[in-house]
Amino acid sequence: MAATKQYVYNFKKTQGMGKDLLGGKGLGLSQMTLMGIPIPEGFTVTTEACNLYYASKKKLPKELIQEIYDAITVIEKDTKKNFGGNKNPLLVSVRSGARVSMPGMMDTILNLGLNDTTVEVVARETNNERFAYDSYRRFILMYTNIAKNHGRTEMDKMLEEMKHKKGVKLDTELNAEDLKALVKKYKDYYKKVFGEDFPNDPKVQLIEAITAVFRSWDNPRANVYRKMNNIPYEWGTAVNVQSMVFGNKGETSGTGVAFSRSPSTGEKKLFAEYLPNAQGEDVVAGIRTPLPVEHLQKTQPKVYQNFLDIVKVLESNYKDMQDMEFTVEEGKLYFLQTRNGKRTAAAALKIACDLVDEKVITPEEAVMRVDPKSLDTLLHPSFDPKAIKSMTPIGEGLPASPGAATGKISFTAEDAAKRGAAGEKVVLVRAETSPEDIEGMVAAQGILTARGGMTSHAAVVARGMGKTCVAGVGTAIIDEHKGTVKFGNKTYTTKDTISIDGSTGMVYEGDIPRVEAGLTGYFGRIMKWADEYRTLKVRTNADTPKDAETALKFGAEGIGLCRTEHMFFDKERIFYVRKMILADTLEVREQALAKLLPFQQKDFYELFMAMKDLNVTIRLLDPPLHEFLPQEEDKIKELATELKMSVAQVKARIDYLHEFNPMMGHRGVRLDVSYPEIGRMQTRAIIRAALDAQTKLGKKVVPEIMIPLVLDVKELKFVKEIIEQTAQEEIAASGQKLTYQVGTMIEIPRAALLAESVATEATFFSFGTNDLTQMTYGFSRDDAGKFLPDYYKTKIFEQDPFQTVDQNGVGKLIKMAVQDGRKTRPDLKVGICGEHGGDPLSIEFFHNAGLNYVSCSPFRVPVARLAAAQAAIKAKRATKKA
Amino acid sequence: MAATKQYVYNFKKTQGMGKDLLGGKGLGLSQMTLMGIPIPEGFTVTTEACNLYYASKKKLPKELIQEIYDAITVIEKDTKKNFGGNKNPLLVSVRSGARVSMPGMMDTILNLGLNDTTVEVVARETNNERFAYDSYRRFILMYTNIAKNHGRTEMDKMLEEMKHKKGVKLDTELNAEDLKALVKKYKDYYKKVFGEDFPNDPKVQLIEAITAVFRSWDNPRANVYRKMNNIPYEWGTAVNVQSMVFGNKGETSGTGVAFSRSPSTGEKKLFAEYLPNAQGEDVVAGIRTPLPVEHLQKTQPKVYQNFLDIVKVLESNYKDMQDMEFTVEEGKLYFLQTRNGKRTAAAALKIACDLVDEKVITPEEAVMRVDPKSLDTLLHPSFDPKAIKSMTPIGEGLPASPGAATGKISFTAEDAAKRGAAGEKVVLVRAETSPEDIEGMVAAQGILTARGGMTSHAAVVARGMGKTCVAGVGTAIIDEHKGTVKFGNKTYTTKDTISIDGSTGMVYEGDIPRVEAGLTGYFGRIMKWADEYRTLKVRTNADTPKDAETALKFGAEGIGLCRTEHMFFDKERIFYVRKMILADTLEVREQALAKLLPFQQKDFYELFMAMKDLNVTIRLLDPPLHEFLPQEEDKIKELATELKMSVAQVKARIDYLHEFNPMMGHRGVRLDVSYPEIGRMQTRAIIRAALDAQTKLGKKVVPEIMIPLVLDVKELKFVKEIIEQTAQEEIAASGQKLTYQVGTMIEIPRAALLAESVATEATFFSFGTNDLTQMTYGFSRDDAGKFLPDYYKTKIFEQDPFQTVDQNGVGKLIKMAVQDGRKTRPDLKVGICGEHGGDPLSIEFFHNAGLNYVSCSPFRVPVARLAAAQAAIKAKRATKKA
Repeated sequence: MAATKQYVYNFKKTQGMGKDLLGGKGLGLSQMTLMGIPIPEGFTVTTEACNLYYASKKKLPKELIQEIYDAITVIEKDTKKNFGGNKNPLLVSVRSGARVSMPGMMDTILNLGLNDTTVEVVARETNNERFAYDSYRRFILMYTNIAKNHGRTEMDKMLEEMKHKKGVKLDTELNAEDLKALVKKYKDYYKKVFGEDFPNDPKVQLIEAITAVFRSWDNPRANVYRKMNNIPYEWGTAVNVQSMVFGNKGETSGTGVAFSRSPSTGEKKLFAEYLPNAQGEDVVAGIRTPLPVEHLQKTQPKVYQNFLDIVKVLESNYKDMQDMEFTVEEGKLYFLQTRNGKRTAAAALKIACDLVDEKVITPEEAVMRVDPKSLDTLLHPSFDPKAIKSMTPIGEGLPASPGAATGKISFTAEDAAKRGAAGEKVVLVRAETSPEDIEGMVAAQGILTARGGMTSHAAVVARGMGKTCVAGVGTAIIDEHKGTVKFGNKTYTTKDTISIDGSTGMVYEGDIPRVEAGLTGYFGRIMKWADEYRTLKVRTNADTPKDAETALKFGAEGIGLCRTEHMFFDKERIFYVRKMILADTLEVREQALAKLLPFQQKDFYELFMAMKDLNVTIRLLDPPLHEFLPQEEDKIKELATELKMSVAQVKARIDYLHEFNPMMGHRGVRLDVSYPEIGRMQTRAIIRAALDAQTKLGKKVVPEIMIPLVLDVKELKFVKEIIEQTAQEEIAASGQKLTYQVGTMIEIPRAALLAESVATEATFFSFGTNDLTQMTYGFSRDDAGKFLPDYYKTKIFEQDPFQTVDQNGVGKLIKMAVQDGRKTRPDLKVGICGEHGGDPLSIEFFHNAGLNYVSCSPFRVPVARLAAAQAAIKAKRATKKA
Repeated sequence: MAATKQYVYNFKKTQGMGKDLLGGKGLGLSQMTLMGIPIPEGFTVTTEACNLYYASKKKLPKELIQEIYDAITVIEKDTKKNFGGNKNPLLVSVRSGARVSMPGMMDTILNLGLNDTTVEVVARETNNERFAYDSYRRFILMYTNIAKNHGRTEMDKMLEEMKHKKGVKLDTELNAEDLKALVKKYKDYYKKVFGEDFPNDPKVQLIEAITAVFRSWDNPRANVYRKMNNIPYEWGTAVNVQSMVFGNKGETSGTGVAFSRSPSTGEKKLFAEYLPNAQGEDVVAGIRTPLPVEHLQKTQPKVYQNFLDIVKVLESNYKDMQDMEFTVEEGKLYFLQTRNGKRTAAAALKIACDLVDEKVITPEEAVMRVDPKSLDTLLHPSFDPKAIKSMTPIGEGLPASPGAATGKISFTAEDAAKRGAAGEKVVLVRAETSPEDIEGMVAAQGILTARGGMTSHAAVVARGMGKTCVAGVGTAIIDEHKGTVKFGNKTYTTKDTISIDGSTGMVYEGDIPRVEAGLTGYFGRIMKWADEYRTLKVRTNADTPKDAETALKFGAEGIGLCRTEHMFFDKERIFYVRKMILADTLEVREQALAKLLPFQQKDFYELFMAMKDLNVTIRLLDPPLHEFLPQEEDKIKELATELKMSVAQVKARIDYLHEFNPMMGHRGVRLDVSYPEIGRMQTRAIIRAALDAQTKLGKKVVPEIMIPLVLDVKELKFVKEIIEQTAQEEIAASGQKLTYQVGTMIEIPRAALLAESVATEATFFSFGTNDLTQMTYGFSRDDAGKFLPDYYKTKIFEQDPFQTVDQNGVGKLIKMAVQDGRKTRPDLKVGICGEHGGDPLSIEFFHNAGLNYVSCSPFRVPVARLAAAQAAIKAKRATKKA
């Protein structure tokens, strides 16, 4: 089976191989070997071996095991040590190493190879029994904890008991006998838990450890991380097996970690810590406090100089900030790992700019260095990290919309709106939100929901508004009638203040100081460079002048989607909206529409004024009419009274409007086909507003009227004729000139399939990828929450298709529609206004599909600008390569 | 505008032109001219002129009017008559003539050209004042009624009053003075109604009449007829203007209609009627009773012989039964029209077979001669036409599922089931039906609903069962609690008997004798020929052995869709189904499934036994689980008691399962992903049943397991593995051999788009065109009823995409999927099991798209066989032409 293929490579034999096979850590070790940097001998078990493991029913095939043994033999020769041998025993570390570093997977097992025999040999040969048994007990602990995936609490307790018994504080104060006793306790415990002896055979230990790494590739935390970061399951992980060097061999030994620049601020300053006489684990565990690396300068100046030289070599080789691990064994320096260091968004921006100024990288490279997703955190205020550190969250949900919000609890949208209007800061706490809650959501500082996920109504709307939201706080028990919410055992009322962190999903009691966001100079520089490279325009989805202004500040180049229905929920208007919906006759409907006209006109006017001469795309009414009607008995009564109708009449109409599948019901362009007077009123409002704004601004205003849910060119043509007729009337009456465009959303599969004919009537297309995804997948976002977890669990889906556009299916439709549409109309303007417009991976796809622009929520604009630039650069590089 | 193009053609100048331009009637006149058959001079205004009229805002452009006048001038020359002239005045008829004859459009205006002047000239020249004024008053009546679209009641009343006053019974008994007085009354009335004088100018009359024909192309009845018969609106209608000949010029004149064979039985016997001294209108109006044409033999033997000769020429020229109109004017015979005659399905079959036996046409031609849709009427019993004739319907709805059903009224499914089981014949009368009503529907003779259309639940399910159904009887007022239904002013109870006609939509009081259906010899011959030509296989959708047997009788070649969920509603099973759904744990769910296993196994066994070695495709559970749960308070209580759960628990689970858009919810393959144990149970039942049937039959049984709602190959693979594992277990345990296949439905757009990869795991595809249409159009069939009427009205849609497959959008996906699927698997078997499988136009598309089979309801099987043959023949002919 594995006979012909090689799965295991000595670090020295990996030239020309890449991350895909070796993993990130493996590649780093391979490259350090090439650079002549001292690293301990070892080998990489490739990612292909991981896939082989899963293909072989989660077993390592015999041939692969043999290859691993053979690789060990080579290490034995090179180090002149023996694996499990009676003298000079070879101990190794086993570490996972995927293509990208992944929290949640098995990390590291050190000192593998120790057993009751070799521990004695080590003790004898190092003349340090304490060191030998300390290593052994650490190994048993790690093996139990990491390879066998068993909690370390009990073993930690044994260590504490031992220290207590001996009356000491530090681990280092325990002597060899103490540690020997501890080893025995650990082993007894192991046998009790697993029903078998702790494995004595180093080969068994090794195969078990490697298997554990592979197994950890599929554990729940790894799966969640992969999904969050678009990492394909098929990539698999590599495993690195490396001979141990010891930082705990006395005072000329030690271990440390280093960043070549500050990972939190980006400052150009070596940031390194060193712990003498210790193994790496001690640094990570935080049991002992490490010293600044400068300590070495005093104690081992040569080693220190050597260390500084290597750091320089590594950073200049990788042209990026490095995150390194190193060990000094009796005066000899080894590097165990180097990788591009993780950093905060702020640090990423500064480092990229500095590297350009240092002429290490080009501005193009700098643009590629910043993760667009990370920018989000820079755009919202956040809780002061110092204050947070000392707090215990009272609940945890999904980080649905970033930001930090503090306020008193409010349980209904009305209450939130009222108290918000009165100047009070409130956090809206609901089981879930619905379109009727919009006003309350606007008035609240933030939104917390007990149900719903990252794509729930609350989450989507909040992200759109740039409003903080924590969704799906499952442990919150809300009693709206009583006006209470329980987190844990404590009950909170409308008088209590809570703070929610939309970037982490945490909920806190009380007020927490916040740090305001700002676009720093580095941010501005990167954005400027990004704008030079990108060809994709970035617009924003904005319904209000406030949204528009925020987006302009972030560099939006127009509005790609103004949803006219959000304006309908306003208190002054909803009455007329409902009257219009409940009208039996055209006459009554037109009367109600006439009342709505000035409101809509004013909204559009303000939007045009805010956007100046930038393009503004306004979508005609989209949701089904029943969404605007009340459902509760008392509200229905109220409405009936207001409208001078009987309750029965109102109910009958509500019943009539009820839909089995509202998503696929009477909405979008279908409303204008049934009630052309709605489209007529909206067109009138748009054109009048544009004419007024044009006069006021002294600049050309170009409204783009967009028709939603089109499925056939005839439908588009029908409504376009209504729009054109109305627009011509208004323009003629004004005596001015006005250019406007009429285009369509492409969100129904049929419209994408028939784009060639649809383009005969549309001057622009805007993909509504939310609905297009729903229809193409045949599932409703509102309902999918119930079965999507099963799809992730079974790996049928690895990504949420509403987060990152499905390039295979939905993407095929998009590419077809762009190509076919441009056959008819070569200058067809094509954009996208679904939520995917703010997702970097999706933006790359849209760039490659030939779109002209993406439109996203205001706070996503910088993300999109950067992602668009990266997409353009990647495409250019790919062309060059080809 | 119309300057360069010719829109008006004299009959003699139409050589080489087709029906598309001349219309059916125009082409007939053109061809008769060529054959030398005597017809009155005239010209055709083409269908393009009709389109021009609509493109010109419903006006005839000046140039077109001039062309018409020029054409009249030619007729004047040829006939030596004058249009509106003082002597020898030219009178004309104006008739509509679309490509296919269309009831509902303006038909005929005769005697156009008469006015106060010409009437006197005609009187003088024919020396028959009575004839002249009779013609004039008829013309005014027709013009008012047809060209001006005004009811004839008042004018008819005037005629009656005149006869009453004169003490006569027949029109012919009125003298010239009476008719003159009537003309005056008619004209006064006209002026009163229209506020203007009756037009005196024949040119004005002519242009008005032609305009009226064009206008009638777009009237509601014509639109309904077009939609019903798939006639495109763009075709337009032609108009034929022909000089009048008069059958009312005395005893040597007369008029008649003739069929060259019997239109109701197909018997080879001239079927002609003749009315001496009359115009065609008298025959149609049925005012006077016509004589058999043999009357002519006695009175004018030469004319009679001439007539017989021409009939022969016409039939042998058109090689089909002809429907003709003729007039004898003072001993000279004119033919006014010939066309292939409409006929009953039975006549169509007999005529086609007879023509083959007469060696006039080939069997291939015979197969093309029968309208597949018409066969439906032959497959269901029908009310005795003689009995029906004397009855007045008490209500009318849509002819939702053909057949004739009589029974006592039943208002609930339970009641129907109970009484049905007790041997009583009942008609289930409900506001609308739901899946819970299935049992009652099965037990009833027929179903009547007050709400819902041709695609409502009741209609779809009834057609599937071949059960009579009249849907949407809007005037029926049902009070389920009282147990009454009102039709008009009369109230009926469960003790009353009604009869419903699913072919006409009529509802009658009491019992009506019925005529059973039978596959006559002619039917069999045509079917045999059809089978020789078709390449598309025809399977059936069948859930029960009874369905399967009916379908086999009609020639089904396998089962293309067995819906396993229909079996779940059975009384004995629904409890376990509900228990399974409400289960909190896998254990409880598996216990309930274990109870269902023997039921399903028995069902499948019976199906396999019925179908012998023919293919049987069984679809795994499809609907969302909540469809199986009760909604009413008392039923919920009952269920809670049965399940030993609290009402609150049951309600909570029902609430949890509620979906916003069930169509796009947790159903189909998604159920098996979440609950693999369901698929496992169903597979076990299928495989065990197949093994048993194989043993019993001593023949190979090949079950095809079909997975619904697949959207990705990974999903398919996941469920396929469960199926294969279970199947292998069962087969191994049996010690037998069994071949089975696993395939997928293609009903989600994404599956069609990704067919190339989906085919790696599926050995067959079956298009679920109902859902595929819903998803591709983005609308739900359940909700579309509210806005589809607006779509028909605005002509955005001309067809119901659920009746005839949308070839542009859905069709594009189907063609892509077939091609892409076969790239992966050249021998991929592809079928369709949506309702389109029984629609002839759709079947033609499926043939051309390369499908292997269609599957339709049992009663549609003969329709599909014939349609498939026609599709193959058409394709062959098209290839030959190309």
